[in-house]
Amino acid sequence: MIETTKPLSYANVLSMKDLEADEVMAFVREAQAFKAGKQIQLTRPAYAANLFFENSTRTHTSFEMAERKLGLQVVDFNPAVSSVNKGETMADTVKALQAIGVDVMAIRDRHNEYYTKLVNDRHIHLGIANGGDGSGEHPSQSLLDMMTIYEEFGSFAGLKVAIIGDLSHSRVARSNMEVLNKLGAQVFFGGPKKWFDDRFDAYGTWMPVDDLADQMDVMMFLRVQHERLDASENKHFTAAKYNAEYGLTPARKARMQEHAIIMHPAPVNRGVEIADELVECDSSRIFQQMANGVYVRMAIMASLLRYQGLVDED
Amino acid sequence: MIETTKPLSYANVLSMKDLEADEVMAFVREAQAFKAGKQIQLTRPAYAANLFFENSTRTHTSFEMAERKLGLQVVDFNPAVSSVNKGETMADTVKALQAIGVDVMAIRDRHNEYYTKLVNDRHIHLGIANGGDGSGEHPSQSLLDMMTIYEEFGSFAGLKVAIIGDLSHSRVARSNMEVLNKLGAQVFFGGPKKWFDDRFDAYGTWMPVDDLADQMDVMMFLRVQHERLDASENKHFTAAKYNAEYGLTPARKARMQEHAIIMHPAPVNRGVEIADELVECDSSRIFQQMANGVYVRMAIMASLLRYQGLVDED
Amino acid sequence: MIETTKPLSYANVLSMKDLEADEVMAFVREAQAFKAGKQIQLTRPAYAANLFFENSTRTHTSFEMAERKLGLQVVDFNPAVSSVNKGETMADTVKALQAIGVDVMAIRDRHNEYYTKLVNDRHIHLGIANGGDGSGEHPSQSLLDMMTIYEEFGSFAGLKVAIIGDLSHSRVARSNMEVLNKLGAQVFFGGPKKWFDDRFDAYGTWMPVDDLADQMDVMMFLRVQHERLDASENKHFTAAKYNAEYGLTPARKARMQEHAIIMHPAPVNRGVEIADELVECDSSRIFQQMANGVYVRMAIMASLLRYQGLVDED
Repeated sequence: MIETTKPLSYANVLSMKDLEADEVMAFVREAQAFKAGKQIQLTRPAYAANLFFENSTRTHTSFEMAERKLGLQVVDFNPAVSSVNKGETMADTVKALQAIGVDVMAIRDRHNEYYTKLVNDRHIHLGIANGGDGSGEHPSQSLLDMMTIYEEFGSFAGLKVAIIGDLSHSRVARSNMEVLNKLGAQVFFGGPKKWFDDRFDAYGTWMPVDDLADQMDVMMFLRVQHERLDASENKHFTAAKYNAEYGLTPARKARMQEHAIIMHPAPVNRGVEIADELVECDSSRIFQQMANGVYVRMAIMASLLRYQGLVDED
Repeated sequence: MIETTKPLSYANVLSMKDLEADEVMAFVREAQAFKAGKQIQLTRPAYAANLFFENSTRTHTSFEMAERKLGLQVVDFNPAVSSVNKGETMADTVKALQAIGVDVMAIRDRHNEYYTKLVNDRHIHLGIANGGDGSGEHPSQSLLDMMTIYEEFGSFAGLKVAIIGDLSHSRVARSNMEVLNKLGAQVFFGGPKKWFDDRFDAYGTWMPVDDLADQMDVMMFLRVQHERLDASENKHFTAAKYNAEYGLTPARKARMQEHAIIMHPAPVNRGVEIADELVECDSSRIFQQMANGVYVRMAIMASLLRYQGLVDED
Repeated sequence: MIETTKPLSYANVLSMKDLEADEVMAFVREAQAFKAGKQIQLTRPAYAANLFFENSTRTHTSFEMAERKLGLQVVDFNPAVSSVNKGETMADTVKALQAIGVDVMAIRDRHNEYYTKLVNDRHIHLGIANGGDGSGEHPSQSLLDMMTIYEEFGSFAGLKVAIIGDLSHSRVARSNMEVLNKLGAQVFFGGPKKWFDDRFDAYGTWMPVDDLADQMDVMMFLRVQHERLDASENKHFTAAKYNAEYGLTPARKARMQEHAIIMHPAPVNRGVEIADELVECDSSRIFQQMANGVYVRMAIMASLLRYQGLVDED
């Protein structure tokens, strides 16, 4: 069994910016240990809640599964009927759940850095995992991406990773380019030039997708988030045109090196970012990413539980 | 304790058409065994999800209860906030949940035979129970009806069973007439003549409700599904007129044989299909049907778990 | 550990009017015992459902947490997709869940005394806890208020308790004034005079909030329920004006006796009933009330389980 050298313990897990390279690797290794069957013992029955003020079944379900696999009880929370609709602040909602007995929670919200007010509130002492903040970060997605790459290559040093697509609106892009740099990988970018700007220059170089196909170890496609684009921008692309110009086509797949892998945070717009028949090809790690997401979230929630003194270490 | 001779094991349970008479009886007997207290041991913690894209609290809750009674963890899934709303196919949603660790699921959807695409997808290998497909089938309802009749009479041979009401729109009617024939019962039909057509001739004879009341062992009333009828059709009936012409009235109840029973898939429109005061009369098995539904669904989900190698048989 | 002298056992817990002073105290002491770590053993796996036809995450979550802490399995119920939308009566929904195997439930509904039809239905035999009925009662809120006061003062005799705010629309006000009288406390009222009427005269005296601040042991503020007021009434107040005239301000807090406490059923409209910075001051018991809510609801659900013969007493 793969073991981390010392147990991870965090008050909150909010941003990849807070994590040094060795901390990222500690999360990856802890997640691998969970994948290999590691279990933790709780010191008492413990309770999780998932506050998803922005929809995301996939991330929500993955956190819930992680919590259940850690032996937590998951308390149902439906934002649609919550007191937030009576004008209650998120901090008061969190404190109410804390008072009721919730020990750890995952939160997703459409406001960037929604968590600042929560962690600065001295009456909040439960552990919070950021499940995505607006156009900000999505640390559990970054960690599962890193885990999937590490599982494949065993190292980040010198690895060539392309991030392709809607860079300007993607939480995943920004978190991953920083983390990959920290870990020693080389980052490249692809996709529509108008979605690439000088914020990205410090992290990597833009290249045409054909060239990326030739040279990369990892082709990481981003979802074209229709809902984040205004209609006038959007009508520049049809699905077929986007796929032909910036997406993965059978021709580009044929140009990829044999060991190279395809990633995507999902859900994939089949036929847009990736040709339908390639989504589950042998080089695709897309469903493996989802599977790894559960183990990464186990590592995150376990680190919060450990900080709360709820893990019995022996 | 009632035991089945060999353990049921199915990749999926989708349609009554797939089941021979002895298989139906094996499900009924397994359900009776669960009702009598039978328990199964899982080889590891296992996870169920219920994807109800069409509303049905009753069936949904019954599946959930069955899953919990089998010792499964039930992962929350809310179709209203799922990625299906981002254009994801049902197959991709199912594969995402599978990747996350779901082992078995019940699905209800408004599209007939929605499951064909799922079972033909070679990347889907979890077990699926059909919780109802459009105007197609509703196998767990059929099995609970068979269980309830078998509990009452101990045999199907020569039993006279009437199916009364909205035959043309009812999943229950079509599944049950076939299964009852297979099992050796005689099927009769009642209700508005316009809802009876030559598709039903091969399975049984239409009769006036008064005559059915005189002769039947089982009076199975179907829900008048207002939502499936267009307004012009609908206005032909008032509740009182439907009950007087086609429903169970005290006068018809008085004509029924003493041993005859009343069934209904529920929810009953009280005063329409069945007079209010008769819904829970001594001859009614309506709430017993609901109770049996849990045990039948335990048998179904256990058969999927067994196929997945998740049941420890000793 | 604090122990009740004899185990509480009730068919249903619906109204504070049904409870004598010693029964209220028995619930308070049982709740304190649960808070101190008391656990119950169930005679078999038992199932709870929470039917919240009117939104209230806080009460809903608190009941769910209580049920989980008692070792119950909580069956998901979403009224938005239930058969109630197909015209099913609440009694039939309850009987369906009972048939499926639910042993105890908490119900909230917007109709006053919705529960009368349920408890008069001889086919309903599961245990029901009232989670709030329209403008009627909210017994678990009253009991948690009593528990919080008793924890603080150890006695009700001669205690001066003010209930301040929207008396005419508040379930909490009416239940609490009666119970506090029964328990020997003196009740006073405050807030807009137009919300005070002669129904309240028998229970206590109205005073200006400044005078209440000087004299009370407990200052219990009620939520200004915007949604229950018509717009024309509502526009008489701005938040600032309400706070200045009837709410807790720093000046009024300064007038309070050192031992006096602040209560509120939550969610607080910060800056309306209570100045933002006072919601979590040292004298506030608002979040302690929420914490106590779980233990009170454990006592309630345990009393229902005991009546059902589901608690193993030794």
